Amino acid sequence: MSVGLVGLPVLHPIPGIRLGTTAAGLREPGQRDLVVIECAPGTAAAAVFTRNRFCAAPVVLARKHLSQAAPRALLINTGYANAGTGAPGLEDALSCCQVLGRALHCTSAEIVPFSTGVIGERMPVNKILAGLPTCVANLQEAGWAEAAAGIMTTDTVPKGCSRRITIDSHTVTITGIVKGAGMIRPDMATMLAFVATDAKLISQALQKCITAAVSETFNRITVDGDTSTNDACVLLATGKAQNPEIAVSSEAAFGEFTRAVSEVFTELAQAIIRDAEGATKFITIDVTDGTTETDCLEVAYTIAHSPLVKTAFFASDPNWGRLIAAVGRANAVEFKVDAVSIYLNDVCVVRNGALAEDYSEAKGQAVMNGQEIHVRVSLGAGTHKARIWTSDLSQEYVRINAEYRT
Amino acid sequence: MSVGLVGLPVLHPIPGIRLGTTAAGLREPGQRDLVVIECAPGTAAAAVFTRNRFCAAPVVLARKHLSQAAPRALLINTGYANAGTGAPGLEDALSCCQVLGRALHCTSAEIVPFSTGVIGERMPVNKILAGLPTCVANLQEAGWAEAAAGIMTTDTVPKGCSRRITIDSHTVTITGIVKGAGMIRPDMATMLAFVATDAKLISQALQKCITAAVSETFNRITVDGDTSTNDACVLLATGKAQNPEIAVSSEAAFGEFTRAVSEVFTELAQAIIRDAEGATKFITIDVTDGTTETDCLEVAYTIAHSPLVKTAFFASDPNWGRLIAAVGRANAVEFKVDAVSIYLNDVCVVRNGALAEDYSEAKGQAVMNGQEIHVRVSLGAGTHKARIWTSDLSQEYVRINAEYRT
Repeated sequence: MSVGLVGLPVLHPIPGIRLGTTAAGLREPGQRDLVVIECAPGTAAAAVFTRNRFCAAPVVLARKHLSQAAPRALLINTGYANAGTGAPGLEDALSCCQVLGRALHCTSAEIVPFSTGVIGERMPVNKILAGLPTCVANLQEAGWAEAAAGIMTTDTVPKGCSRRITIDSHTVTITGIVKGAGMIRPDMATMLAFVATDAKLISQALQKCITAAVSETFNRITVDGDTSTNDACVLLATGKAQNPEIAVSSEAAFGEFTRAVSEVFTELAQAIIRDAEGATKFITIDVTDGTTETDCLEVAYTIAHSPLVKTAFFASDPNWGRLIAAVGRANAVEFKVDAVSIYLNDVCVVRNGALAEDYSEAKGQAVMNGQEIHVRVSLGAGTHKARIWTSDLSQEYVRINAEYRT
Repeated sequence: MSVGLVGLPVLHPIPGIRLGTTAAGLREPGQRDLVVIECAPGTAAAAVFTRNRFCAAPVVLARKHLSQAAPRALLINTGYANAGTGAPGLEDALSCCQVLGRALHCTSAEIVPFSTGVIGERMPVNKILAGLPTCVANLQEAGWAEAAAGIMTTDTVPKGCSRRITIDSHTVTITGIVKGAGMIRPDMATMLAFVATDAKLISQALQKCITAAVSETFNRITVDGDTSTNDACVLLATGKAQNPEIAVSSEAAFGEFTRAVSEVFTELAQAIIRDAEGATKFITIDVTDGTTETDCLEVAYTIAHSPLVKTAFFASDPNWGRLIAAVGRANAVEFKVDAVSIYLNDVCVVRNGALAEDYSEAKGQAVMNGQEIHVRVSLGAGTHKARIWTSDLSQEYVRINAEYRT
């Protein structure tokens, strides 16, 4: 199930981007599991990847290839993460890039590989190679929805987002897809997110845009605190919109474009949480009035990662005692207990460190009965703030992860 | 259920310590929920408490009373944590100390209060006061087993441990009881643990002994990473064994005594993990060859707190990919991936950062099928090490915490 996701929105095509998807037999028979995203020559790319030290072979290779050449295509397989596979795993990923490169008349360095699925097992390379011709034959600008389905693993619904804005009198489109439901606690990156735009930007502006947008979106979600070995977020810019090239120095245009990318990233990041494994609640956590943003984030993540807080949300139980226990144990954060206030939506639960006099169980229960819940903690110590999103912890999460091998 | 706990062992009485327990109606009818532990005059006490900033009223009062006078009795109630209750909560705790002090002909400062249970609700003080006379009437040296049952909350079995050693030709006994099954990630303290000895120690030695013993035992267990608001560990020494007074400077005797206390603490700490909420596995995590002990602990806790690792243990799934993902994301730890080795019991899973050539799924499965599993991670970066204990994450953990208010 998912919280508040009602089907894939319209995903506007991006001139210069074609997508091809097939079922290569990497997962259940008939399930789409292999995707090629082709970019027109001249497309600029920026990407961020997982900081997990045991990063996957495709992450290593993708970083290398992006540093060597502008990409002509992204290749994404599900079913196998190709992580913890050592040198043979790197060779597997390279083989796939070589074969796709030949099919698209480019070099293997112009192919950027991505994998998601079970860690530690070798990929069935032959199945991937056998699937590539169908992907290439299927390449089309209208291929976004199929690709969104093709990158899913434990996701229950395909997830995507599209925006159109006007910059310098030119209509610019931004379209993206994302996958991820578990092993979610991105660090400088996300699960797999592929976002493209027809805007024209200089490369430095594109990298600055993705870095800024990721830090407030994909890096602000957590399902289980587990940072994946394969996280990657890619932003492609084909330049087909013919707008005057956006530089960091073109402040109005750069700001407007970055805001729009952030909006797309936010919707995609939230979609991951809405489709989190076993999730029944979508929880926004705001921590305000901290001495530093780091302090606010530490408190927010301590709440978000507390199994006791998460099960209370699952049970729709206004168990604010677990909230204060989590706030109270947050590591190395500066605040005084009697300056802390805690709200559930608009209901003040804790004021100045103690139960609010006007709080009632009925008020708390009314908030907790909802599917979307807003927790707000004011530390009363400073002027900084941070927002993250998370899900609850249900028996279904345990079942999924006891039965599925990630 | 519990992992490998087969009933309470013989708990030797401690001369100078008497325990009285009753069912005061704080929990289910007939359930023991109120305990008094009386100490003979001259008993020395040392204690460590939770570092959670939202610590409970009894923790505040216990610290204060212990700084003012040697204790004549400990008073423990379950059902209510008396945390997040503000000034009225402090008054409630003080009232109970005053009434028990009158009954035992001592001052309220000589009574040390402890509470465990639901956070945020006021205690039914009248029920506690009404139960005290029965506790006092029941006081007996053989009261340990009843007291072990009387301090339980979500615990499924009473937990205790007893040791006899010889120091300077005198037999010295150490007996302790403990409660705790969830909200377990002690920080400088534990859940409620009450340990007494008839050994004679100078006060400074007793404090040094408890600090040393706690750091390697109760501070090395985690169920869910949630540090309680009420953790406390008390060590009482009645001096009735008539041994030559142990000082820190009496190295042999102090060392021997501290080792014995550590053994008792270790068994009690492990008993908490064996009885962890929903636990089906008892997991020992050793991280070795780190640059610092802090690095080793960070890796160990990252593994122990990973919901994905914990559900893999629950599923008896040798999903080593989740182990490397957890090691790889450990925060700010110095190591190189290709120096890392990981073992499940004696089975080498990862060698030099990649899947060990002699590893097989069958070998991993054989280990995971067991109830007691030993994970060992060698970081290959230095000479330090750390050991912790944890439990798995089952659907039962979620059910317990969705249905029970802690």
